[in-house]
Amino acid sequence: MNATSPGADGAPIVIPARRGVAVRLVQGEAIKVINTHGRQVVDTWAFNREDIGESMSMEHSRTAMLKVIPRVGDTLLTNRRRPILTWVEDTTPGVHDTLIAACDRHRYAQLGVVGHHDNCTDNLADALASLGLKTHETPCPLNLFMNVPVGGDGALKFEPPVSQPGEYVVLRAEMDLIIVMSACPQDVTAVNGMMPTDAHYAIV
Amino acid sequence: MNATSPGADGAPIVIPARRGVAVRLVQGEAIKVINTHGRQVVDTWAFNREDIGESMSMEHSRTAMLKVIPRVGDTLLTNRRRPILTWVEDTTPGVHDTLIAACDRHRYAQLGVVGHHDNCTDNLADALASLGLKTHETPCPLNLFMNVPVGGDGALKFEPPVSQPGEYVVLRAEMDLIIVMSACPQDVTAVNGMMPTDAHYAIV
Repeated sequence: MNATSPGADGAPIVIPARRGVAVRLVQGEAIKVINTHGRQVVDTWAFNREDIGESMSMEHSRTAMLKVIPRVGDTLLTNRRRPILTWVEDTTPGVHDTLIAACDRHRYAQLGVVGHHDNCTDNLADALASLGLKTHETPCPLNLFMNVPVGGDGALKFEPPVSQPGEYVVLRAEMDLIIVMSACPQDVTAVNGMMPTDAHYAIV
Repeated sequence: MNATSPGADGAPIVIPARRGVAVRLVQGEAIKVINTHGRQVVDTWAFNREDIGESMSMEHSRTAMLKVIPRVGDTLLTNRRRPILTWVEDTTPGVHDTLIAACDRHRYAQLGVVGHHDNCTDNLADALASLGLKTHETPCPLNLFMNVPVGGDGALKFEPPVSQPGEYVVLRAEMDLIIVMSACPQDVTAVNGMMPTDAHYAIV
């Protein structure tokens, strides 16, 4: 990110409802991801800018954090166990998700949708394509603001976010990276309160 | 698997301590994975036999099962949300894991091991190479018999398995597939009771 890039002055930039954006960060820069309307899940991925095969991994991060959900001070790791993002601020109640796959065309078909439905998997691919990049796989995303409580018996539920409008998290880049954020278009289950909206980000 | 393949008569075949094996199954065949000595984790992957890019996915399976740990009757899905393995029998207390990455050379270095240490990621690669196959990524494994309890606050702990010698699970193939099982060589944390051992499998 250089000084003339969008968002480099800290002004919020839109993540349009149902769409994804890719942003380059250099090591030490931080990004604020804002739940502008309070009930929007933002599926988030990060990739080593020098090698897209190295990506943020929920299963490697959980192993190191010994937690299902990151908290301030935790560092997320890549699939090579290197630090990629540190969780430096969180003004939400701390409800996020690392367990659930990005939605995709197959998910909506199984939920009864006929024909095309926007989805986070395609949003990731489109956002990376805007930078001329492509991945072999869709890594499990960091689902910011997503509310999937784990019951005592390991049961999972899809619930609406509990964050309030304007609450945010700040993530610091631990390497030069590309971060992709998708304002999840899920409107069949309650994960976005049944109404996908814009979200915003800012380089801080 | 044809009638003359090892294990086709239901006789148990060894998964050597610290090593991995790859087995071809046709749709409808089932595999029994036996915790021979009771305290051995078996990292397990499954791949579409026709397209190794389609693999069993913990995050897609959790989304469909609405559970962290599969139970008898549950079906695990691929990264394209197609059924790949159904959990048809489980004589253990039902403690398994879907949250933790396969161990790898980086994990052991971070745990203080100097030099080579056997690991499940290399075991997967070696087992697939024995069939002339290779994957781009190491999917998050289904960690049979692994005991990583999730606390009420989402905290994770590495504990020894609670299964008894000879207890097993049976998984049925829902497509023609390759299953890879690695007798986890972890001897730095307690996940194998500090003593990696053989396990066994049988086609049933």
